[in-house]
Amino acid sequence: MRFELLIVNSQTACTVNIELINTGSELMLGFVLNSHQAWLCRQLADLGYPVTRQSAVHDSGAAIQQIVGEALSRADLVIVTGGLGPTSDDLTRDVVAALVRRPLHEDPAVLACIERFFAARNRPMPARAGIQALVPEGAIVLPNAHGTAPGLVLDLDPNPCRQDGKAALLVMLPGPPRELRPMFSEQVVPMLQRRFPLQAPFACRVLKTTGLPESLLEDKIAGPLASLVAVGLVIGYCARIGEVEVRLAAQGPNAAQIVEEAEQIVRSIVGRNIFGMNQDELAGVLVRLLTERGQTVALAESCTGGYIAHRLTNVAGASAVFLSGLVTYSNQAKQRLLGVKTETLAAHGAVSEPTAREMAEGARSRVGADFALAVTGIAGPTGGTPGKPVGTVYIALASGQETIVERYLNPYDRETFKRVTSQQALELLRQNLLMQKDTSAP
Amino acid sequence: MRFELLIVNSQTACTVNIELINTGSELMLGFVLNSHQAWLCRQLADLGYPVTRQSAVHDSGAAIQQIVGEALSRADLVIVTGGLGPTSDDLTRDVVAALVRRPLHEDPAVLACIERFFAARNRPMPARAGIQALVPEGAIVLPNAHGTAPGLVLDLDPNPCRQDGKAALLVMLPGPPRELRPMFSEQVVPMLQRRFPLQAPFACRVLKTTGLPESLLEDKIAGPLASLVAVGLVIGYCARIGEVEVRLAAQGPNAAQIVEEAEQIVRSIVGRNIFGMNQDELAGVLVRLLTERGQTVALAESCTGGYIAHRLTNVAGASAVFLSGLVTYSNQAKQRLLGVKTETLAAHGAVSEPTAREMAEGARSRVGADFALAVTGIAGPTGGTPGKPVGTVYIALASGQETIVERYLNPYDRETFKRVTSQQALELLRQNLLMQKDTSAP
Repeated sequence: MRFELLIVNSQTACTVNIELINTGSELMLGFVLNSHQAWLCRQLADLGYPVTRQSAVHDSGAAIQQIVGEALSRADLVIVTGGLGPTSDDLTRDVVAALVRRPLHEDPAVLACIERFFAARNRPMPARAGIQALVPEGAIVLPNAHGTAPGLVLDLDPNPCRQDGKAALLVMLPGPPRELRPMFSEQVVPMLQRRFPLQAPFACRVLKTTGLPESLLEDKIAGPLASLVAVGLVIGYCARIGEVEVRLAAQGPNAAQIVEEAEQIVRSIVGRNIFGMNQDELAGVLVRLLTERGQTVALAESCTGGYIAHRLTNVAGASAVFLSGLVTYSNQAKQRLLGVKTETLAAHGAVSEPTAREMAEGARSRVGADFALAVTGIAGPTGGTPGKPVGTVYIALASGQETIVERYLNPYDRETFKRVTSQQALELLRQNLLMQKDTSAP
Repeated sequence: MRFELLIVNSQTACTVNIELINTGSELMLGFVLNSHQAWLCRQLADLGYPVTRQSAVHDSGAAIQQIVGEALSRADLVIVTGGLGPTSDDLTRDVVAALVRRPLHEDPAVLACIERFFAARNRPMPARAGIQALVPEGAIVLPNAHGTAPGLVLDLDPNPCRQDGKAALLVMLPGPPRELRPMFSEQVVPMLQRRFPLQAPFACRVLKTTGLPESLLEDKIAGPLASLVAVGLVIGYCARIGEVEVRLAAQGPNAAQIVEEAEQIVRSIVGRNIFGMNQDELAGVLVRLLTERGQTVALAESCTGGYIAHRLTNVAGASAVFLSGLVTYSNQAKQRLLGVKTETLAAHGAVSEPTAREMAEGARSRVGADFALAVTGIAGPTGGTPGKPVGTVYIALASGQETIVERYLNPYDRETFKRVTSQQALELLRQNLLMQKDTSAP
């Protein structure tokens, strides 16, 4: 699989020039990943407004002022994140007000909001918190339901950063994700759609697949989709560890119909491999399927070390279907906790079809679940043999009627190995649940 | 704790103006996090070369050419990632060669390398792969030990993108992380240090702490460090989920001594809370401590759902000290697998001090480990009561001599809850191991 070659075709469905600026020294020192970039770019692209350029600078007044000025000289919409809080390194409000020549005034309504925020939490309001009530002249205030710093929008018409004065919208959002995200979705998106209506309808859908490498998936679907590409379909592929996303997008009067037809074609070819759409996660899909059926699952994990249990229990409501997981790293634990036979381990080894089978059957009966998944393998970097090289994994699914065991080869680094193997195990159960459904259909 | 306010003071220890440009439509569509930005910025900052500005654009020839040209008009060093591969959206090589007016020539040595790469893997070389042997006139080629696209360095003197012609170094690196990272560390860093020697020695160290909120940590250490700040110490704080990093940096003739003294002061005040330095992880530190002592641990997880086992088993060598983990989500599993008494559950509930105690003791004796950690709590969003609100957690550590149980309140979203709770559990064991060491000292 091409884990590291992430290819998504360029999507230029929009004539609005959008720039995103992330401020924060923690970004520039490499202490944190820029989650704002991924989140905002994804939201905007899925609405038909792909971001043209993203930039980041330190919490330095001069650097922020320079980069915002440059962005305003090019773009129709500039979104700035961070630097609106009360501390000494929160500089965005001040330097932007100076840049666009809009003096700051205290807004009594914002100040009252901040006072209420602290009163509701029975905490004294720090003196510096009042700075967040300063608003540039003419700014639209975006109330912050989850914090104290409001968002700020400036409609710059004329735009003082362009010689031709062409208007631009400048949106400033607070840095904390739980403040930024609802503010963007609930307040900025409607404003954006009013101010920059799309020139033609835009449609976009992401199908999430597992079990097919990116190149094979592309080989299967590219030909059948060619006639839709000719009328405007844009296909993107994003290979992740253990899954490939297919993005289908179009813009024009028939956008929705083109994407709909494309989805049907993809489903008719690789429908079995599609586990979800857009933000779906395989573990979440599985919890939903089990919940619908009123069935339960247990886990016996060796080489994945608890990662499958972790993925399932990240899903709200997992407790209704996931009863118990046993992480049995040692042979002794496989014997004591799962009842794997000494002879089995002696004759076939811990990484073998019979051991995987006994682990799954032991977990199922001891926990009392409808299904049990078991994984045993060689994560490496050591422990491989010619017959069982590093990356060899056996995955077993016990269902009472039968126990299926599959063998895979996942020769990757430790964390990739865990991710790929967990994906294969969850998918084995999903396929089994779908087959049940098929056979029980009239 | 201030999980979402990530503050690291600006660090301007370098007079080299460095810009980083990440190309890739997958970044601009928000499909992936920009891990190159975090990794490269961290590497450079820790060497005393903080990145001044980072930008990203789509895989569009015009956009790449424009942004590289702008960066070259400002910076001394420009690093571009991605777009050097063989596919049609790999455009960096071509557009940069045109921008700086350095025609491309096929380099026979690079072509031979690419041919050997495919031969060694018994795969036919695709025709397009040869494109990667095209090298701009005068470029230094950085061999790629893990892929086919070499890195390229252009020493632009004069720099055609500046009116004054001031020289700049342009470094182009392939996109896949396992190709980019060793190439950067082994080939680019020495070149950078030769070309841009630091004007004064730079020193930097990161201390990783847990158990103290950022504001309390700052209150404790800021005063005692003030005299070192007066002579050039720069302190940064980065609050993550369940831990806070303290970055100590200085530049000047006494940089190493200043950072060393600062570290000693911090250790003398909050040494108990410091679990590691630089890239250390708490789970890795714990595996090392247990390995040194020849001791083992078992886990009984309810609300963390396998996450603690997952963290431990991410550490290479964990199998020597981590015997087994039981994820007991249901009451029945707590009884069946850990021997928690029906009366205990009936009288005190699953989230209680006695249940946590019996879980730890049951896991320890059933698995046969030296220690067992158990966690039981209410992750939410539902299930809270006035006496035990959402976020209530009991963490027990059984060691044979005694069982300690601690109560915490972690009222966060599901994944934050798991992360914070796992951190508290691992830290409880670490503190216990350190106390053992202290009492056994002469």
